[in-house]
Amino acid sequence: MSIVVVGSVAFDTVRTPFGEVDGALGGAATFFSVAASYFSPVNVVAVVGDDFGDEHLAVFDEHGVDARGIERAAGRTFRWGGEYSLNLNERTTLFTELNVFESFQPKLPPEYLESPYVFLANIDPELQMSVLEQVENPRLVACDTMNFWIDGKPEALRRLLRKVDILVINDEEARDLSERYNLVDAANAIMGMGPTAVVIKRGEHGVLAFLGDEIFSAPAYPLDKLADPTGAGDTFAGGFMGYIAGCEEVDPANLRRAIVAGSVMASYCVEEFSLAGIRNLDQEAIARRYRAFQSLTDFGDL
Amino acid sequence: MSIVVVGSVAFDTVRTPFGEVDGALGGAATFFSVAASYFSPVNVVAVVGDDFGDEHLAVFDEHGVDARGIERAAGRTFRWGGEYSLNLNERTTLFTELNVFESFQPKLPPEYLESPYVFLANIDPELQMSVLEQVENPRLVACDTMNFWIDGKPEALRRLLRKVDILVINDEEARDLSERYNLVDAANAIMGMGPTAVVIKRGEHGVLAFLGDEIFSAPAYPLDKLADPTGAGDTFAGGFMGYIAGCEEVDPANLRRAIVAGSVMASYCVEEFSLAGIRNLDQEAIARRYRAFQSLTDFGDL
Repeated sequence: MSIVVVGSVAFDTVRTPFGEVDGALGGAATFFSVAASYFSPVNVVAVVGDDFGDEHLAVFDEHGVDARGIERAAGRTFRWGGEYSLNLNERTTLFTELNVFESFQPKLPPEYLESPYVFLANIDPELQMSVLEQVENPRLVACDTMNFWIDGKPEALRRLLRKVDILVINDEEARDLSERYNLVDAANAIMGMGPTAVVIKRGEHGVLAFLGDEIFSAPAYPLDKLADPTGAGDTFAGGFMGYIAGCEEVDPANLRRAIVAGSVMASYCVEEFSLAGIRNLDQEAIARRYRAFQSLTDFGDL
Repeated sequence: MSIVVVGSVAFDTVRTPFGEVDGALGGAATFFSVAASYFSPVNVVAVVGDDFGDEHLAVFDEHGVDARGIERAAGRTFRWGGEYSLNLNERTTLFTELNVFESFQPKLPPEYLESPYVFLANIDPELQMSVLEQVENPRLVACDTMNFWIDGKPEALRRLLRKVDILVINDEEARDLSERYNLVDAANAIMGMGPTAVVIKRGEHGVLAFLGDEIFSAPAYPLDKLADPTGAGDTFAGGFMGYIAGCEEVDPANLRRAIVAGSVMASYCVEEFSLAGIRNLDQEAIARRYRAFQSLTDFGDL
């Protein structure tokens, strides 16, 4: 079944110790859409500027992503620049140009309104809410957020969380939102705000997920070659939601597999710059890395 | 089959945000021995002073640990004091008094010489080597070390590593020893120094183990109550070695289970101060927590 995702489409300038890209197609909605497309139909809602060309649109088309919800506005597309430290564990933002994103008012095409799965990538919680209100009777709503909104728009975020089933955030954000350091405490506090599940992304340390009263831990795949972590979290969310939208039932067993599917996609993402690691995958490559996660974590009875 | 372990027996003074202990029985060999004793017979080699009383020896006796290798010397037992930060993620050493440990020359009682399993806890690599040379034809040798020896006695450590099967260290030490940041690269470099397996302890992020050409990842158990991390790494090593010594065969499948057994013991260790979390366990408690690790990590086919 189809997913509607709202978030940024951007041009990224990224420097890592292993190379650099200048103005490469990126943004949360882009990484999410490409990753999710391997599992389920995706409808994307975003805004781009005059500088967004057919070659950029082609990335969505190639993956069968419905891009009718990408609005074109006068001006330049959102641009972001960042630089990673030698060990890729610290990131410095070099510039952020909101451009057309600054006055973005997401409007869903009529074809999107019955999408049963909704993913609200990290944007202003008021915009996340306005998208959610347009979707008719969604089956499952997940969202991401960041410290900027946790600290800057706490009330709008709290209103949104009451309508969200699954919150997908990183460990620092979980601590900030809950005002608890221990992640078990943090997740329990967040589940008291509305979500029935909290999926905590811990970068190279994998994912710790609180699925109602179950806890699930998935490692990140140990890679000897990491080129660029940009978009890994959004790619995780895309694989995760894509897998869920392809399941008959949303239960903890399928959520566990969805977390591993997301981790598979994120592991491919970081091996190359920008979208290069996830643009040309096939089902066999995904199944192979999934089996590698099984081999990585498998142990028998005592 | 039996294990011989050499390492420190100490009195620890520990402050954490959740309480404090003053002069509590600790030391790597103590945590290791108690943890390993639930799985296999243990022979301990260490030195203590005049202040080591029958109540301290009783801790070894209670667990069936052969303490004939604990030498009594004139003077005070090794003492260590440390304080943990609010989130338990940083530790400040308040004092280190080597005392009788300063002139320790480990000598194995005749009953220990045929122990097939050897664990060399974190002490001077020259002393580790002298213990290893006393054991007749060991079946499996594992050791721990720390940055102090990696930087201070690199040649003695390299000589030792050529005779070691499994190195059990933390991530920072693996990076320091290998001069590689990426843990896959680091482990491969270390396996080039002698060990056929490298088990990297990552604290709250669990364990990443390189078992020949297999990689195994085990999480730490997510606890909402952590009292005192002191001894968790040595407790892990004890559960790990104890489990191995109880196996018919040392193969990757058993090493994986041994890593989870070690993680089970470490998870009990940190729930209480000093040895309190692991002193009074039984097989049912260990099996129950092991099943909790299975539930924590289990996911099915794609």
